[in-house]
Amino acid sequence: MNTLAFIDAALDEDIGPGDVTTLATVPLSREGRGVIVAKQALVVCGQELARRVFARLSERMGAEVRYLPLVPDGAAVRMGDEIAHLEGSLATLLVGERLALNLLMKLSGIATTTRRHVDAAGPTGPRVVDTRKTTPLLRDLEKDAVRCGGGVNHRRALYDGVMIKDNHIAAVGSIADAVAAVRRAAHHLLKVEVEVTDLDELQQALDAGADVLLLDNMGDDQLAEAVALARALRPEVTLEASGNMNPERIRAIRDLDLDVISVGGVIHQATWVDLSMRITG
Amino acid sequence: MNTLAFIDAALDEDIGPGDVTTLATVPLSREGRGVIVAKQALVVCGQELARRVFARLSERMGAEVRYLPLVPDGAAVRMGDEIAHLEGSLATLLVGERLALNLLMKLSGIATTTRRHVDAAGPTGPRVVDTRKTTPLLRDLEKDAVRCGGGVNHRRALYDGVMIKDNHIAAVGSIADAVAAVRRAAHHLLKVEVEVTDLDELQQALDAGADVLLLDNMGDDQLAEAVALARALRPEVTLEASGNMNPERIRAIRDLDLDVISVGGVIHQATWVDLSMRITG
Amino acid sequence: MNTLAFIDAALDEDIGPGDVTTLATVPLSREGRGVIVAKQALVVCGQELARRVFARLSERMGAEVRYLPLVPDGAAVRMGDEIAHLEGSLATLLVGERLALNLLMKLSGIATTTRRHVDAAGPTGPRVVDTRKTTPLLRDLEKDAVRCGGGVNHRRALYDGVMIKDNHIAAVGSIADAVAAVRRAAHHLLKVEVEVTDLDELQQALDAGADVLLLDNMGDDQLAEAVALARALRPEVTLEASGNMNPERIRAIRDLDLDVISVGGVIHQATWVDLSMRITG
Amino acid sequence: MNTLAFIDAALDEDIGPGDVTTLATVPLSREGRGVIVAKQALVVCGQELARRVFARLSERMGAEVRYLPLVPDGAAVRMGDEIAHLEGSLATLLVGERLALNLLMKLSGIATTTRRHVDAAGPTGPRVVDTRKTTPLLRDLEKDAVRCGGGVNHRRALYDGVMIKDNHIAAVGSIADAVAAVRRAAHHLLKVEVEVTDLDELQQALDAGADVLLLDNMGDDQLAEAVALARALRPEVTLEASGNMNPERIRAIRDLDLDVISVGGVIHQATWVDLSMRITG
Amino acid sequence: MNTLAFIDAALDEDIGPGDVTTLATVPLSREGRGVIVAKQALVVCGQELARRVFARLSERMGAEVRYLPLVPDGAAVRMGDEIAHLEGSLATLLVGERLALNLLMKLSGIATTTRRHVDAAGPTGPRVVDTRKTTPLLRDLEKDAVRCGGGVNHRRALYDGVMIKDNHIAAVGSIADAVAAVRRAAHHLLKVEVEVTDLDELQQALDAGADVLLLDNMGDDQLAEAVALARALRPEVTLEASGNMNPERIRAIRDLDLDVISVGGVIHQATWVDLSMRITG
Amino acid sequence: MNTLAFIDAALDEDIGPGDVTTLATVPLSREGRGVIVAKQALVVCGQELARRVFARLSERMGAEVRYLPLVPDGAAVRMGDEIAHLEGSLATLLVGERLALNLLMKLSGIATTTRRHVDAAGPTGPRVVDTRKTTPLLRDLEKDAVRCGGGVNHRRALYDGVMIKDNHIAAVGSIADAVAAVRRAAHHLLKVEVEVTDLDELQQALDAGADVLLLDNMGDDQLAEAVALARALRPEVTLEASGNMNPERIRAIRDLDLDVISVGGVIHQATWVDLSMRITG
Repeated sequence: MNTLAFIDAALDEDIGPGDVTTLATVPLSREGRGVIVAKQALVVCGQELARRVFARLSERMGAEVRYLPLVPDGAAVRMGDEIAHLEGSLATLLVGERLALNLLMKLSGIATTTRRHVDAAGPTGPRVVDTRKTTPLLRDLEKDAVRCGGGVNHRRALYDGVMIKDNHIAAVGSIADAVAAVRRAAHHLLKVEVEVTDLDELQQALDAGADVLLLDNMGDDQLAEAVALARALRPEVTLEASGNMNPERIRAIRDLDLDVISVGGVIHQATWVDLSMRITG
Repeated sequence: MNTLAFIDAALDEDIGPGDVTTLATVPLSREGRGVIVAKQALVVCGQELARRVFARLSERMGAEVRYLPLVPDGAAVRMGDEIAHLEGSLATLLVGERLALNLLMKLSGIATTTRRHVDAAGPTGPRVVDTRKTTPLLRDLEKDAVRCGGGVNHRRALYDGVMIKDNHIAAVGSIADAVAAVRRAAHHLLKVEVEVTDLDELQQALDAGADVLLLDNMGDDQLAEAVALARALRPEVTLEASGNMNPERIRAIRDLDLDVISVGGVIHQATWVDLSMRITG
Repeated sequence: MNTLAFIDAALDEDIGPGDVTTLATVPLSREGRGVIVAKQALVVCGQELARRVFARLSERMGAEVRYLPLVPDGAAVRMGDEIAHLEGSLATLLVGERLALNLLMKLSGIATTTRRHVDAAGPTGPRVVDTRKTTPLLRDLEKDAVRCGGGVNHRRALYDGVMIKDNHIAAVGSIADAVAAVRRAAHHLLKVEVEVTDLDELQQALDAGADVLLLDNMGDDQLAEAVALARALRPEVTLEASGNMNPERIRAIRDLDLDVISVGGVIHQATWVDLSMRITG
Repeated sequence: MNTLAFIDAALDEDIGPGDVTTLATVPLSREGRGVIVAKQALVVCGQELARRVFARLSERMGAEVRYLPLVPDGAAVRMGDEIAHLEGSLATLLVGERLALNLLMKLSGIATTTRRHVDAAGPTGPRVVDTRKTTPLLRDLEKDAVRCGGGVNHRRALYDGVMIKDNHIAAVGSIADAVAAVRRAAHHLLKVEVEVTDLDELQQALDAGADVLLLDNMGDDQLAEAVALARALRPEVTLEASGNMNPERIRAIRDLDLDVISVGGVIHQATWVDLSMRITG
Repeated sequence: MNTLAFIDAALDEDIGPGDVTTLATVPLSREGRGVIVAKQALVVCGQELARRVFARLSERMGAEVRYLPLVPDGAAVRMGDEIAHLEGSLATLLVGERLALNLLMKLSGIATTTRRHVDAAGPTGPRVVDTRKTTPLLRDLEKDAVRCGGGVNHRRALYDGVMIKDNHIAAVGSIADAVAAVRRAAHHLLKVEVEVTDLDELQQALDAGADVLLLDNMGDDQLAEAVALARALRPEVTLEASGNMNPERIRAIRDLDLDVISVGGVIHQATWVDLSMRITG
Repeated sequence: MNTLAFIDAALDEDIGPGDVTTLATVPLSREGRGVIVAKQALVVCGQELARRVFARLSERMGAEVRYLPLVPDGAAVRMGDEIAHLEGSLATLLVGERLALNLLMKLSGIATTTRRHVDAAGPTGPRVVDTRKTTPLLRDLEKDAVRCGGGVNHRRALYDGVMIKDNHIAAVGSIADAVAAVRRAAHHLLKVEVEVTDLDELQQALDAGADVLLLDNMGDDQLAEAVALARALRPEVTLEASGNMNPERIRAIRDLDLDVISVGGVIHQATWVDLSMRITG
């Protein structure tokens, strides 16, 4: 679903056949101005999307309101800072307010949560990436929010990356056979990642020629051991760790020689941040 | 967007032109079984939806896997409890696993959070309802999850309820004129709710004939005073309180004579609960 | 279906892969002017929609024609009056003519029919409202047309109003139980309407706390008696009458103390009025 | 828009996020039976469509109700006759009742109106056909209803038939040039029809080789004269008359040697017939 | 599927959630210029479509690139000739390049192939038309390309022309009955074409009053004989030949008195021509 | 666009409001049988798709015809071999015949062309892959057909693989900077491919750490030299050659130590193969 289709569906969801209250009280031609204010410290995300929500709604209602961002996506702001101004048709502003705020609060929540993880990893530590644990139909937006927070994205979906897990291995018979089967079928620009949970699987995956290893759900000590072994056997392999990650643990393991830490929680444990719209005239 | 369209869009999002890994390793005809397990105590939500995800994916892939729920939506389960069994095509199971879990984890998270608020209100206290602060395109699902948690829904959207806020009042000139304008335009099965923030507005709204009052962002004492005044003036008016609500505060105010407490946070402060799929054969 | 999607689907329906005749005879660059004329007295409805039809078609054909309304929606015009001018690409004008006229003739027909009912109710009588007996996919447009004619809308659909009919009552067991069941499930901004067909049901519905009564299919005398009884028992209840309504009957009962008369026929007994397009240069 | 897409959009329109009343009062598992009865004499149309409405809704609600037609489309029934039985989930029956009846009442209305025109033309008279004056998005359904009434369809749309009108002629310069231009551009399975309003144009159109003449808005005498002239000059030409047609006038001119009489009013002057659903158990 | 929907679907197909390479290397604000060059002699087709691809993509990416055609559709150009210039956002240009070229190369391939057939038929020979052997979802575009090459279109689809083949005849029983059945059902602006494969069928079809004959898969001598017989029996019948047609054979039979030669191969035997985009600044 | 949506759109394209000829001549209940025969030697592709076309059409028409494949996709058949049988409703068979054949003829054409290239590469030579030069909206189908022919797919689209071309390099400044920029932005399961046209660029790309090199448009000698240099500098790099590839040239270069040869022509230079449907009862 491209962005315009998403916005249309979201407007349909909240407005349907019309905003009963606003249509009865505010003429389309009445002018108004508003400001969006941060009610807490946060990392901003969703400015361009909010702008497009109001642009599209203006077109649908035939009365324009303009959304003027005051800070870029990715900016850290303090409680009380103004995020954006709006000016134009008051009716359009009021009808679109909820959708725009819902998007900004949700996406900024993810960006703010991600930033805490990224800061924990430090400027020279592993890259912090998301997972496929995303809200259905909002994956693109949520992955954008991770980038606003300073994170990097993992593969988008099942179609643009190979990740061999235990069930795939069981179906084929061995790690070596699974890697070989995928190499035959996948296009030659995709690396092959294998999920391993102990040192024996790690050894097999390296022997099979995996490009990337996912060290899944290991304790800190086992993780250190796994990294050391992998680097000894094949230094250039990409090493990703996952499982029960949070800022504290990331800080604890950031000096292991990991390339990537993947954290579903930057998206699914993020709650919305608090923003409010105030009409100013 | 009806449920089937939602499921199709969500499958397209995660699968796109195909799951590279599974298609290369697991033949469609291979049988498999799986179980979904709660990794924490939680209230279940999303069983019928998960069933339909696998039913639709089975149709799209031409290889059937059946989703067999073991507990109904709304059930409270403990860590380690089994939620559902799956049996049929292993490939279909693996391709659909992520989407089904994403929905179950998100919706059960909302149900679980809601249940805490509902328990705080107690069996004879005010009803706990949601707001329009929902994830765009998932409002129906999230409102279902609030009901799984024992909550009740507020209006669905801008089209099925009247809520007069300060900006509507400012545009018309007075609470009385705003109520009158809406009565003329809205159909006669809609009640009129007016948001008030102090006793003076409360008085005006009652005078104007509002059916429901939203007592917004009041402190506990002001809230008590407002309820008392409203009940004195017009006993049958519906009274709703909102603003900074959480289980603790709900417990504190549940004996005021409120009808409804609305809490955006049952949805937007809920994080996902932890579920996992294990292949069992 | 939002308006733009409706227009696109309607253009696809009539044009498909192209207007064979016009494309063969009229170059896109040829200019033309037209006028739309009322061939009978009527109430106008559809002006903004017609404007958008030509705007969208202009975009699709890459050749612009402008639709310039001469009277607003809701205006009563006489036979021979001009409704709108068009100017721009003659080809676009000819290709879009039929769809625009079909909409204007249909919607103005409903507005004209509605006006006769509204006039019969008089300035101080009950409000005349529509029902859910509307053409599938055109409900929003037809309800707009009722407003053009001076009527008011009833609930939009099954989702924004409660109407308890005999079959609902039978399923639950009694009027009292049905009202209670709906109060528990429905959000608190919806009134509860109960359909009653005799004085006994009326009494039960009032006892159950119904907000609105639908006095369905009663003769004039029974209607008078029902109104009197209801007003005696609970003066503030909203009273709606329906069944076999037409301007004559509305005139006969308008002085009963009814709030609302609902008339499916303002839509489904309305025939199209006659309009024609004349090319003027 | 194919039939299934139409039904889905129509269900979305009336049901949206859910039927508040029925969901609160009728469990999905409750069984029920209903019957649809004609409240007046009428010609039936829409049986297969009604069946598909309930089939699709059954699928969407997960609770089946079956629609069992008792008479075929095109059958003339009397007041009180039963049209169809329903049996299965009472909730599904009640939720789908309105859409199904709206379609049956509208389409049977067109079939009934058409039948009066067809009877007026008699068994050996000209064929009665519709026009492009149809409700946007319902053209296929309305044209089906004309056939239920015994009529025949005219061209479907702008893409499957050629009709040269005065504005096309004016743009090209002459009837002869317009016919030639269309012959060059249109595919060779399309006949060319030319609209003529007097004998001079008729002569030109025949000289230009038109396959079909539309004798538009002529009085009865002029019509007789036009037919006679055309038959004398080119006996095999197809002759169509239109403008202010109704059963009385059709009866008056049916013995002229016309091939086709086109009547927009079989669709746009048809009002809905009266049908009702009664729950029988 | 209208053109805009087609372009959106095609952009979604190639871009999905984003062009990984370009987004990483080219800022949206960077300006660039490009030129599209013919790498072989060819007939151009697709200029307006390419322009709309870049216009739509510019809108979606929020960074405009303009497509400036240098020659019109239908123009024959030589190897090395410039077809179009582009200027604006380099990122938008690079992201849209492949889709635009794919369309231009495919459609110009059809136009070029068609031109060879049309030249073979000569200026006074039969018209060269396409068939329904087209790429699913691209029929409109491919039929446009046939016209760019100087050809004419046959019927668009099953809905806008009648073609009675042997299987239809077998189902009804005879050519005469099949023609009669279609005349009753089809609207009166459609001619009736009958496929015949020998002189006996030809005679029957003429007797049945067919408007057009398809002389299918006849050798040159049999074709000559069939044309002569048909012209003798009914001079005004339209005669179409098909089966194994190519430029050489068309040249051989172009002086027979045929009206139309239909050639599926102008579309399905056309390969893409070679075009390339060069960045010039 | 998933397969079901594709099939629906394709059926809409060819059938629209209905097959005039078949509906008039063949009752839905009439049974029939057919066979699809190869009119030339070819490699089959599209069997499952054809089966789904008839399954979906059966559902839409309410009259079933079954498609029974006789050989699997990828099978090489000879002239005269039977590909599939059909049995069931003759009307459904005739209405769906064209779409099914169009798909089978087009896709089998690509499979047949691919097979010639794959045979030229030999069992131990480089893998033959396609490119993004595909028919808009049919990419998934065409890439499936390449696999039917024994080829392998290249990246699907812009979103699932990185390919740095000269224009990306120019925008960033150097190959090294472009590779670094992409590594930062792209997820860690994507390899980075760099297009090089001479030995100097090849050296730079290897120095920059490219995973894959595209040796584009080199002559045979330069290609040999490039492969030798690359293997000497970094043996494990993946080497892809492209530009003016055909079976003859592939045979000439297959013993160079290339991993992949990409050939747009397996899709865009493939013409349809010849298949016909014969009714057998």
